[in-house]
Amino acid sequence: MTQKEPITVAITGAAGNIAYSLIFRICSGELFGTDQPFNLNLIDIEPGMSILEGLVMELQDSNFHLINKTICTTDPFEGFRDADYAILLGAYPRNKNQTRKDLLGKNAPIFKIQGKALSLVAKRTVKVVVVGNPVNTNALMTTKFAENIPKENIIALTRLDMNRSISQLSRKLNKNVSNIKNVFTWGNHSASQFVDLSNGYLLEGSKKTPLTQLVEEEWIYGKFQKTNQMRGKEVLLKRGRSSAGSAANAIIDCLKSWIYGTENYVSMGVISDNNPYNVPENLIFSFPCTCKNGTWQIAKDLKPNDFCKKMIKKNVEELVEERRIAFELLKD
Amino acid sequence: MTQKEPITVAITGAAGNIAYSLIFRICSGELFGTDQPFNLNLIDIEPGMSILEGLVMELQDSNFHLINKTICTTDPFEGFRDADYAILLGAYPRNKNQTRKDLLGKNAPIFKIQGKALSLVAKRTVKVVVVGNPVNTNALMTTKFAENIPKENIIALTRLDMNRSISQLSRKLNKNVSNIKNVFTWGNHSASQFVDLSNGYLLEGSKKTPLTQLVEEEWIYGKFQKTNQMRGKEVLLKRGRSSAGSAANAIIDCLKSWIYGTENYVSMGVISDNNPYNVPENLIFSFPCTCKNGTWQIAKDLKPNDFCKKMIKKNVEELVEERRIAFELLKD
Repeated sequence: MTQKEPITVAITGAAGNIAYSLIFRICSGELFGTDQPFNLNLIDIEPGMSILEGLVMELQDSNFHLINKTICTTDPFEGFRDADYAILLGAYPRNKNQTRKDLLGKNAPIFKIQGKALSLVAKRTVKVVVVGNPVNTNALMTTKFAENIPKENIIALTRLDMNRSISQLSRKLNKNVSNIKNVFTWGNHSASQFVDLSNGYLLEGSKKTPLTQLVEEEWIYGKFQKTNQMRGKEVLLKRGRSSAGSAANAIIDCLKSWIYGTENYVSMGVISDNNPYNVPENLIFSFPCTCKNGTWQIAKDLKPNDFCKKMIKKNVEELVEERRIAFELLKD
Repeated sequence: MTQKEPITVAITGAAGNIAYSLIFRICSGELFGTDQPFNLNLIDIEPGMSILEGLVMELQDSNFHLINKTICTTDPFEGFRDADYAILLGAYPRNKNQTRKDLLGKNAPIFKIQGKALSLVAKRTVKVVVVGNPVNTNALMTTKFAENIPKENIIALTRLDMNRSISQLSRKLNKNVSNIKNVFTWGNHSASQFVDLSNGYLLEGSKKTPLTQLVEEEWIYGKFQKTNQMRGKEVLLKRGRSSAGSAANAIIDCLKSWIYGTENYVSMGVISDNNPYNVPENLIFSFPCTCKNGTWQIAKDLKPNDFCKKMIKKNVEELVEERRIAFELLKD
């Protein structure tokens, strides 16, 4: 048996909780295949280094035969070297007294330097998934400064929003999650996000029933949206810790779609250039996408209704404002 | 495609950190197969119930299509109902001022009641893996009170000790973990554990090199044993939290071996009845085992050397003493 060449997977915020939920699943071979060895480049800030050393000990003690080499570093120029995949979990953590401007201000320089590092040392074909919030604008910063990396290679995770919608529909309809298709979110990963189920359907055998025939309009535009927006806070309240396992799972789902393809629409925060929905260029915006041969395409043939158009506009305004603030702060 | 009937998986201590690392991997289909639906019965004490509710929300939000039904309960008589698998993570946590007797005293009633519950409501074919410490004696309690469950169906996890040994050998020899075979631990999951590599070999292509030819005797009986014993503490020191991901991984490895079989020796803490190594009956003792068709067998043809025999004896004495204390406490 010839062994595959190792790929390199870089993860920032690797000492955090999402990383802890993510890395063991990656190492089991679930994402890249049980015959695909890899180098694992773990990146975090200085106070995380001891935690990373402990994590590496645990990975060793898990006897993951796919791990070729592991490094722990604070330096993105070392960590992103030759990366085939970069998962950017790290971001400046939100605290209660922070305005959005504060948060954007703290994150902009982080993603500026990471963009530069990716540009300089990662493979030009690197696939980058940004997860740290405010994720859309963080991903946009990354595209701006990663000059050598095609913008299409850098996406923001909005899959958890989609997964949460499907989870909610599954409970509402008392059907398995796998029967619910083509539900997705538009726009920003924020309270403004809009879940669109006007193209969604329930698949049973070969029978497709539009979701709009199964749930009331009032619920779609009311409780459904609200529950989705508040889901993260609800989990935090119950667990006493924010979502980690489900976030890690959404990253795996998103990368599986991107790498292996998907026929149905999935939510991905992607560069808005050349979209058919009047979203201005140069934003990272959650669109319904399909994937094939390692590339994504924005769904072309959808007809958002008037309410949806209004929500797209609201998200555009919010993201244009985030972009303005972030780039202004970077000028200083 | 006909769908398989759901199996039932019960987990105690389900609100804890090992559970959080374990459950998402199970739900991905890694352990029981991507076509095997299951019910997930999550059991913990009252203060864990809110955490469990949050966990269930996250499992829903992960869109795991294999989950048929989930319950959260404090009651083992509800939680173990019809269980095909029971993973007993929960145990009374050790604190610094506790003697071993204190710890055994706190745990004995927990595993007594769980044994009774398993006996009354689980399937007679249930496979039980005990993980909570002191694991060997906790598992022994369980066998005693689970009168309707064959003793062979209840084992103590000692796989993490084995995995840690292989991890250490992999670094020492600079070889992949998958090349190192037939290394295992004897006895108690405690500082007395003895890692035996006298039957171990390095497999390269079809070439088998005995490990005793590759590492110095001084290292085998000195630093190697010591490092393995101290590994858990080292990880705790580095991470600030005890091993969770690697413990969850060892549970998966152990159950995979048990369910799907293994040709090489693996460490399992099993009932000592009818073993050929002079370990007295009615102890849960880590032996080298092979597995086939969902059953384990203690390796029959090994010739422990004198030092190993001495270590087996030491472990026997320790476990006999633990058993004496635990059963004495249960008399009160």
